[in-house]
Amino acid sequence: MSTSNTTSSLKTALAQACTEIEATIDALLPMVPGDESVLLEAMRYAALGGGKRLRGFLAVEVASLFGADHNAALRVAASVEFLHAYSLVHDDLPSMDDDDLRRGRPSTHRQFDEAIAILAGDALQTRAFEVLVEAETSADATIRAELALALARASGAAGMVGGQVVDIRGEGRSLPLDQVRRLHALKTGALIRYAAEAGAILAGVNDSRRDAIVTYGLRLGTAFQVADDVLDATASAEELGKTAGKDEASGKSTYVSLLGIDGARAEARRLSDEAREALSSFGPQAEALRALADYVVERRS
Amino acid sequence: MSTSNTTSSLKTALAQACTEIEATIDALLPMVPGDESVLLEAMRYAALGGGKRLRGFLAVEVASLFGADHNAALRVAASVEFLHAYSLVHDDLPSMDDDDLRRGRPSTHRQFDEAIAILAGDALQTRAFEVLVEAETSADATIRAELALALARASGAAGMVGGQVVDIRGEGRSLPLDQVRRLHALKTGALIRYAAEAGAILAGVNDSRRDAIVTYGLRLGTAFQVADDVLDATASAEELGKTAGKDEASGKSTYVSLLGIDGARAEARRLSDEAREALSSFGPQAEALRALADYVVERRS
Repeated sequence: MSTSNTTSSLKTALAQACTEIEATIDALLPMVPGDESVLLEAMRYAALGGGKRLRGFLAVEVASLFGADHNAALRVAASVEFLHAYSLVHDDLPSMDDDDLRRGRPSTHRQFDEAIAILAGDALQTRAFEVLVEAETSADATIRAELALALARASGAAGMVGGQVVDIRGEGRSLPLDQVRRLHALKTGALIRYAAEAGAILAGVNDSRRDAIVTYGLRLGTAFQVADDVLDATASAEELGKTAGKDEASGKSTYVSLLGIDGARAEARRLSDEAREALSSFGPQAEALRALADYVVERRS
Repeated sequence: MSTSNTTSSLKTALAQACTEIEATIDALLPMVPGDESVLLEAMRYAALGGGKRLRGFLAVEVASLFGADHNAALRVAASVEFLHAYSLVHDDLPSMDDDDLRRGRPSTHRQFDEAIAILAGDALQTRAFEVLVEAETSADATIRAELALALARASGAAGMVGGQVVDIRGEGRSLPLDQVRRLHALKTGALIRYAAEAGAILAGVNDSRRDAIVTYGLRLGTAFQVADDVLDATASAEELGKTAGKDEASGKSTYVSLLGIDGARAEARRLSDEAREALSSFGPQAEALRALADYVVERRS
C-alpha cells in the first residue's frame, strides 16, 4: 500500500494541514502591547517555529475521517501543538536536557532567557486548555469538557510529564525494554494517542470507532518514538534540526541500545503495520492515516 | 462591623475550610509507584505545605453563599490552590525570584531539584484544569467548561503569567502607580477574582450576582496585594515564613515605595471597604466574606 502515490498525496495533505494549523496558531496567539509583549513573542517563537505538526495533523485527519467541523478541528490541532510546544520549551531548559538547538534555531531560553522560556511554556499550556474549552471549538460543552479532560490525562503526571520524570530518573542507568516502552508510552505516546483520539471526541463517534483510533494512535506513537531513536543514532544534526547522538552521549537506554539499529527498525515497522491494521474497518477516507503510519518510520528527520 | 466576634468566627470558618481543602488536595494527589513517584511527592510538597488557602476559601465561601454543592466547591477550591501552588513553585526558581524559602520551608527546587520543581509546577497546572473538567466537579458540562475557561483567562498570558512577566520587566526601574496597579491586577488579582467568581459559576447564579462577586474579588485581591507590600516592608521573615524586605532589596516599585507605609495602609483599607460594599445586596450569609475583607488587610503574615 505504501506506493509513491500515497506518499506523495500524504505529503500534500501534510503540507496543507501544516499551513492551516500555522495560520490557526498565528490567529490564536495575537501580539499584545506593553511589557508582556515579550511573553507573546516567546510563545509565538516556540509555537510557530515549524515542526512536522504530526499531532495537529492527526487531530485534523481523524476529525475529517469522522466528518467533524473543520475549523473546530484546526483549533484542537492548534491546542495540541501548544501543549507540545510547551513541553519542548521546558524539556530544553538548562536544568532539564540543556539543549541550545531546536528545529534548527536557538531553543526558546537561548533566544530569550530562562525566566521567559519557563513562563512562555506555562502560558502555552494554559492556552492549550483555554482553546479547547472556548465555545468556538465545539457547539457542545460536553465535548469541550471531554477534550480538556483527555488532554489533561495525556499530558499531566500520569502522562507526558510523568514520562519526562521517568526519563530523567533513568539517565545513566540501563533500563530493561519493558521500562523503556513504558517511558515512551508516557512521555511521547500519550499525547500522540490523544491527538488522534481528540478528532474522534470532537466528532462524537461511538466507542468502537474511538477504540480503533486509540489503538492506531498508541501504535503510531510508539512507532514514531522507535524511529526517533533510530534517527538519533544515525542522522546528522543538520538533518534533524536538533542535537544528534544525544541518547548515546547521555547513556540513556533506547530502543537502539536494547535492540540494535536493525532490531529497532524492524520494531518500528511492526508497530507501523499494527497501526495500519487498527484502521481496517475504515474505508479509503483513512488512507492518509495509513500512509502516515509508513511516513513516521520512513522519515529522515 | 469588624468586631472581635466576626473575626473569631471568620478564623473558625477559615480553619475548617483549610482542613477540608487540605483533605481534598490530599485525595486528589494520590501517590504512585515507580520512578515518577518523586513527581507526586514534589506536587504534594508544593500543594500541601500549608498556606492561608485564601483562594480556596473564597471559592468555597461564595459557592456556599449561593447554595452550590459543597463537595464540588471543595474540588474547585483544590483546583485553584493547585494553580496557585504551581505559580509559587515556578516563581521561586533560580531564574525567577530565586527564593530558597517558602512558607517557612525550603522552596520546592531546594527540597527536590530544579527539573523536578519545573515539572511538578507543570503537572500541578495540568491537574488544576483536570479537576475542573472531571464530571465529579459539576453535574453540568457547561459549568465545567466555563470554570476551566475562566481559570485559563485568569492564569495565562492575559492574567497571572502576563503579570509575572510585567513584574520581571519592571525590576530595577521605577513604575508609576497605574502600572503597579495593573501589574498586581494581572499577577495576583486575576486569580483571586477567579476564585470568588468560580463559586458563582459553580452555583450558576445570574449576571448581577456574579458581577457583584467579581467586583468583590477584584477589590479584595488588590487590598490583599497592597497589604502584602506593607507586610514585606514591616514584618520579619519569621512572621512571613518567606524572605522579607525583598521588594526594597530588588528595587521594585511597590505600593509602599509609591504611597509610603501610611498611604499604602490607607489604600488597603479603602479597597477593603469597597470589597465590603460590593456585597451590600447579600444578607448575613455573606458575613464571612465581609470579615475576610477586613482580615486580608489586618493580617500579620
